[in-house]
Amino acid sequence: MSRRPRVCAVIMAGGSGTRFWPLSRKSRPKQFLPIAGGKTMIEETVARLRPLLAFEAIYTISDKSQAAAIRKLVPGLKKGNVLIEPVGRNTAASLILATAHIYVRDPRAVVFALPADHLITGRARFIKTLRAAAGAAAEKDVIVTFGIPPAYPSTGFGYIHYSGRKPRKIAGEVFYPVLGFKEKPKLAHAKKFLARGNHSWNSGMFIWRADVFARKLEEFAPEFFPYWRGILEALEKKDRAGVAAVFREIPATSIDYALMEKAGGVLMVKGDFGWSDVGSWASLADIWPRDEAGNALRGESQFIDSRNCLVYSPRRLTAVVGLEDVIVVDTKDALLVCSRKADQRVKDVIENLRKKGKEEIL
Amino acid sequence: MSRRPRVCAVIMAGGSGTRFWPLSRKSRPKQFLPIAGGKTMIEETVARLRPLLAFEAIYTISDKSQAAAIRKLVPGLKKGNVLIEPVGRNTAASLILATAHIYVRDPRAVVFALPADHLITGRARFIKTLRAAAGAAAEKDVIVTFGIPPAYPSTGFGYIHYSGRKPRKIAGEVFYPVLGFKEKPKLAHAKKFLARGNHSWNSGMFIWRADVFARKLEEFAPEFFPYWRGILEALEKKDRAGVAAVFREIPATSIDYALMEKAGGVLMVKGDFGWSDVGSWASLADIWPRDEAGNALRGESQFIDSRNCLVYSPRRLTAVVGLEDVIVVDTKDALLVCSRKADQRVKDVIENLRKKGKEEIL
Repeated sequence: MSRRPRVCAVIMAGGSGTRFWPLSRKSRPKQFLPIAGGKTMIEETVARLRPLLAFEAIYTISDKSQAAAIRKLVPGLKKGNVLIEPVGRNTAASLILATAHIYVRDPRAVVFALPADHLITGRARFIKTLRAAAGAAAEKDVIVTFGIPPAYPSTGFGYIHYSGRKPRKIAGEVFYPVLGFKEKPKLAHAKKFLARGNHSWNSGMFIWRADVFARKLEEFAPEFFPYWRGILEALEKKDRAGVAAVFREIPATSIDYALMEKAGGVLMVKGDFGWSDVGSWASLADIWPRDEAGNALRGESQFIDSRNCLVYSPRRLTAVVGLEDVIVVDTKDALLVCSRKADQRVKDVIENLRKKGKEEIL
Repeated sequence: MSRRPRVCAVIMAGGSGTRFWPLSRKSRPKQFLPIAGGKTMIEETVARLRPLLAFEAIYTISDKSQAAAIRKLVPGLKKGNVLIEPVGRNTAASLILATAHIYVRDPRAVVFALPADHLITGRARFIKTLRAAAGAAAEKDVIVTFGIPPAYPSTGFGYIHYSGRKPRKIAGEVFYPVLGFKEKPKLAHAKKFLARGNHSWNSGMFIWRADVFARKLEEFAPEFFPYWRGILEALEKKDRAGVAAVFREIPATSIDYALMEKAGGVLMVKGDFGWSDVGSWASLADIWPRDEAGNALRGESQFIDSRNCLVYSPRRLTAVVGLEDVIVVDTKDALLVCSRKADQRVKDVIENLRKKGKEEIL
């Protein structure tokens, strides 16, 4: 118990979001774009973990073509740590497979599961929280989740309802018993959550000991446990085809839905380390540097009588005149001009293009 | 008097507007763009005159590089009719030079002076009006001007104040005595003009007999008359250098200011032939075909929840999402995104670029 826990990270890099079209494409989703900082999000995610973890302890999981892109971007990763999903099956399947890989090497290893495409600005604070959470996960039979203090009543995130009554202090951080997970709420509910307090945004980051994960599955998600055991057996026999065969059977659902919403013994630690899921073009307006009129830009722009606009135009001069709250995204073969309030409707553009058979531009 | 008048047209093609940036550039002003129809405006302007005039009777006047562009676009023009200004000197100088050229061949020729970059949709109506105006100018010692029935209280046009009391009917058209020319008014004045009636927009199109033009100059613009005489003498001696030397001395001012505002004996005929000066991007929204949501486009666009937008994007797919009254102009090296209400401020963009030394993009 007193020995330093072996901690591993599993970076979930299999996403294929469309919300950053036209910059993101089917073949180049958000985690492979330098959208929040100077480097791609997957590179930033790995770099952020390195003060705590050696490359040997960092895994990624994604499909095959994404794995190739990851190896190119982060050559330091161990070849065997760049895990490949036989098919896309959402995060429950990804994390069963990745945790099983780690379990085979060390059943008591602590696994930190995190998305490849989130932004964290407070790196030192993040490492401090992560270290404490790893300590908690190593010592107790719990799953630790990172709850983000909500900045506004978002309807785009799930919420974690936690108890303020029996907080436990571990390694300098406070851990709260989780009472329940709530799916993305309607606005009225989100407002209630914020008014009541004791609700955090669900960041989608979790930490568990591999053997604890297995026991939680067995107890709270028994329909998933046979897949866990099947994959584990196949891995122990180095039976790749067997792993793939079991993996294909796993229902495509999120780890939140498959396990977290049902599990007991979950603790939450507050993630006040400057987190953003960078969920849309509009969210970048809070991340990129802005001029005095609130305009954010990448590239060369002229703003005339314009406020709170966001311009991505690295290739050409862009002039924005007399506009407010407008997003402009300029790529080689497609241009998006979008109201900040309507940026969730970019997916409608993609749907229309798909219907028209314009696959080359998706 | 009864012989058919010899009518010539002088197309003023020397303009260098900036209001269609980034499509228009210093080296390619509006008259050389296919902005209103399928052909460039200069081509359309010549084509519009051809039912009435042979190529021998059509002149253009511009600077040297524009003359080269005109010859390329309209190869039918007679070489000697593509007149070149030694320097840019506004329309008074242009029309003194062009009218003198015609005077030398036939002092009683009727000269129709018109800009190269206006749109006229009612071509047959235009020819009918022009024919009647030519008849009036041939028979009477008057200058005829084309007044456009004002559609709204524009502050972007000058106005012609005319008398409704003594209209004269000539060749089926009604001609009104002009009481005065008004410069571009403030909105309150423009509104008054419309409320009062008897005010038309000044289209910048005029028609005069060459010898009448000379006499009007002598009587109403005597400070310009020596230049007229100087150019005429140099032309008669075929002294090119002499023509250029006199031309350079002419004050750079408009024919409106130099002559029309002061002249007596001016008649106005109503130009109800679907005229537009195509003065800005916003004006094209009334000219290009529109979809049911009022969006006008050139190129391929996706409009999602957007109304009354104007998109010029022949090279790439452009998606417009959740916007109203926005102009998007997509060119190879510059992009403009502009509120329709602010399109007059495009010149500020150009001014900024000039200050920054970005000549290559102007």
